[in-house]
Amino acid sequence: MSTHTVAIDVEPALRDVERRVRRAIMDLIPDAEPHRWLYRLVRAYPSRPGKALRPALCLATCRAFGGSDAECFPVAVAIEMMHNAFLVHDDIADASLRRRGRPTLSAEHGLELALNAGDALAVFANQVLRRHTRGLDQHLGDRILDEFDTMALRTLEGQATELGWRRDNLVRLTPEDYLDLIMHKTCWYTTIHPLRTGALIGSHGRADLRPMVRFGFHLGAAFQIRDDLLNLIGDESLYGKEINGDLYEGKRTLMLIHLMGRARGADAAAVQRYLLMERDARTDAVVEEIRGLMDRYDSIGFATEYARGIAGVALHAFDEAFAAAPAGPDVAFVRGLVPYMLGRWS
Amino acid sequence: MSTHTVAIDVEPALRDVERRVRRAIMDLIPDAEPHRWLYRLVRAYPSRPGKALRPALCLATCRAFGGSDAECFPVAVAIEMMHNAFLVHDDIADASLRRRGRPTLSAEHGLELALNAGDALAVFANQVLRRHTRGLDQHLGDRILDEFDTMALRTLEGQATELGWRRDNLVRLTPEDYLDLIMHKTCWYTTIHPLRTGALIGSHGRADLRPMVRFGFHLGAAFQIRDDLLNLIGDESLYGKEINGDLYEGKRTLMLIHLMGRARGADAAAVQRYLLMERDARTDAVVEEIRGLMDRYDSIGFATEYARGIAGVALHAFDEAFAAAPAGPDVAFVRGLVPYMLGRWS
Repeated sequence: MSTHTVAIDVEPALRDVERRVRRAIMDLIPDAEPHRWLYRLVRAYPSRPGKALRPALCLATCRAFGGSDAECFPVAVAIEMMHNAFLVHDDIADASLRRRGRPTLSAEHGLELALNAGDALAVFANQVLRRHTRGLDQHLGDRILDEFDTMALRTLEGQATELGWRRDNLVRLTPEDYLDLIMHKTCWYTTIHPLRTGALIGSHGRADLRPMVRFGFHLGAAFQIRDDLLNLIGDESLYGKEINGDLYEGKRTLMLIHLMGRARGADAAAVQRYLLMERDARTDAVVEEIRGLMDRYDSIGFATEYARGIAGVALHAFDEAFAAAPAGPDVAFVRGLVPYMLGRWS
Repeated sequence: MSTHTVAIDVEPALRDVERRVRRAIMDLIPDAEPHRWLYRLVRAYPSRPGKALRPALCLATCRAFGGSDAECFPVAVAIEMMHNAFLVHDDIADASLRRRGRPTLSAEHGLELALNAGDALAVFANQVLRRHTRGLDQHLGDRILDEFDTMALRTLEGQATELGWRRDNLVRLTPEDYLDLIMHKTCWYTTIHPLRTGALIGSHGRADLRPMVRFGFHLGAAFQIRDDLLNLIGDESLYGKEINGDLYEGKRTLMLIHLMGRARGADAAAVQRYLLMERDARTDAVVEEIRGLMDRYDSIGFATEYARGIAGVALHAFDEAFAAAPAGPDVAFVRGLVPYMLGRWS
C-alpha cells in the first residue's frame, strides 16, 4: 500500500515526457511548403511547452500494466497531437487570445488559416497512430484505432454540447449537466482514453478497461474544475491563457452554474442579463460584476470543495482500476496525479 | 478504340452512385445525441444530393482495373465523406452562404458548431476507411490508408495557399500559379486520389499509379476551371452556390488572374483596389464592376479556352493511364468525364 498512499511529486516525470513528446512531434511534422500559411502554423502549438499530462498518463499506465515505452510512445504522441488539434479549433470557437503564453493561432493568423492548420494536426495524429499500429498484433492495433475514433467523437460531442449551451443561451443547468458535459468534452480524451489505451497496450489486450472509465472520469473532472478555477484565480504567466476569458465567453463552468442557481433578486437579474448577452456586449464592467458575485455567493469555494470531493472518489476508483498493477513508480505516478490536479497552477 | 472515342452520357452512372453513396453515408453516421448541435449538422451535407463525381470515378477505375464494387465501395464512401468534411470547413473559411442549394452549415448554425461538425465528418471518413482496410491484404490496406493521408495533406496545403493568397493580398499571380494551387487544393482529392486508389484496389496493388497523376491533374483542372466559370455564369438553382460568390470573396480564379494581368490604366487601378479590399468592402457595385471588366477583357473566354486545352491534354493522359485496362463501360465512363467536366451546369 505504501506507493498507493504517499503523495509523490509528479512534475519531474511530466517534464521528462513533455520534452520527449515535443521533440517527437517536431520530427513528425514536416517543415515544408506552404510554410508560412500551413506548416509554420501546424508546428506552433506543439512547439510550445505544455503539461504533457495525456501522454504521461498513457505511458505510465502502459508500463504499470507490464508494457514497454516503445510499444506505447507513438500512441502517446498521437494523443498529444490530437490534443493540439482540438486546442486550435477550440481557440477559434472560443475566440481565445492566448494559448500556452502566446497568441492563439487564430489571433495571430486569422481563423481561416488556423482552422486549416488544426485539420492538418488531426491528419498527422492519425498518421502516426496508424503507422505504429501496423507493427502490432492486428487485433490489438484495431482496438487501439477504435479507441482513438471513440475518443475523438466523444470530445466533439462534448464540444458541440458546450457550444450549443452558449449559442442557445441555456440558463437552467445543474452540476450534473456540467459533469455530463465534461465527461464528453474533457475527460474522455484527457484521462479516460490515455488510461484505457495505456492499459490495453501494456496488458496486450488482457486488462479490463471498464474501471478506467470511472477513474478517468473523476480524475478528468478534477482537472477540468481546476482549469476553470485557474481561469479566474490563476496567474496568467503560469496558466498561459487570458484570466477571466471564460467569463467573457459565457462558458458554463461549475462556478457559473452554481451562481445561476444561487443568485437572488437583483443579483439573479444581473446573471440572467449577462447570460443572454452577446460576447461583444460583455464589457470589463459586466465581467467584473459577475466575478464579484461569484465571490459574494462563494461559487469559487463551492467549486473548490466539489473538486476535492471528486478527487476523493478518484482515489477509490484508482484502487479498483489499478488493482492488477504491481506497486512501483508508474502506479505511484498515476495516483500522484490526483492531488496534482487539485493543486496545479499551470 | 470505339469506347475510347465515342462520348457517352455519364450522368445516369453518376446518379446511380450518388444514390448508393448517399444512403451508405446516412447509415454510417449515427443520428445520436447531441442531435441538434452535432449529428444533425454532420448529416446535413451528405444528405443533400451532390454529383458523386469522386466516388463514381474511384469505383469505375477499380472495375476498369479488374476489381469489384464490394472491394472499393467503402473507400469511395470515405472519399465522399472527406469531401463533405472539406466543404464544411471551406464554407466557413469562405464565409459562403449556400451549398447544394441550401444554406451552408455555418450560415445556418454559426461557425463554431459547423467547424465541430466538419471535424466529426473527417473522423467518420477515417473510421469507414479503416474498418474496410482491415479485411484486405495488410500491405494493400496500408497503401490505401497512406494514399488517404497524402490526399488530405495535399488538399490542406492547397487550401492554405489559396487562403494565404487572399489574406496577404497577392496581386502578381500567373496561370501557372493557379494550376499549382488547384493541383493541391482540388485535383488531388477530386480526381488523382480516386483514380490512384481505384486502380490500386482494382489491380490488387499491381497497377502503375504514376500516370494517374497526370491524367487526374488535367481532369481535375478542367473540373475546377468549369466550377469557377459556373460561379460567374451558372444558374444558381443548378449550381447550388451563390452566383458571384467568388468575386465577393476575392478568390484568385483563372479569370481574375487573367484580368489582373491584362487590365490597363483605370481598369488596372480598379482591379488593384478591388484586390486590396476587405471582403465586407466589396459591395454589389464593386463586384458588378469587376464582373464587367471580365467581359470587357474576355477573361471568361480565356478561361473557357484554357479549360478546353487542358481537357485535350487530359484525353491523351487518359489513354496512357488506362492503357492496361480493357475497353468496356467503366473505361468509357472515365473517359466520358473529360467532356462532362467542360459542359456541366451542376
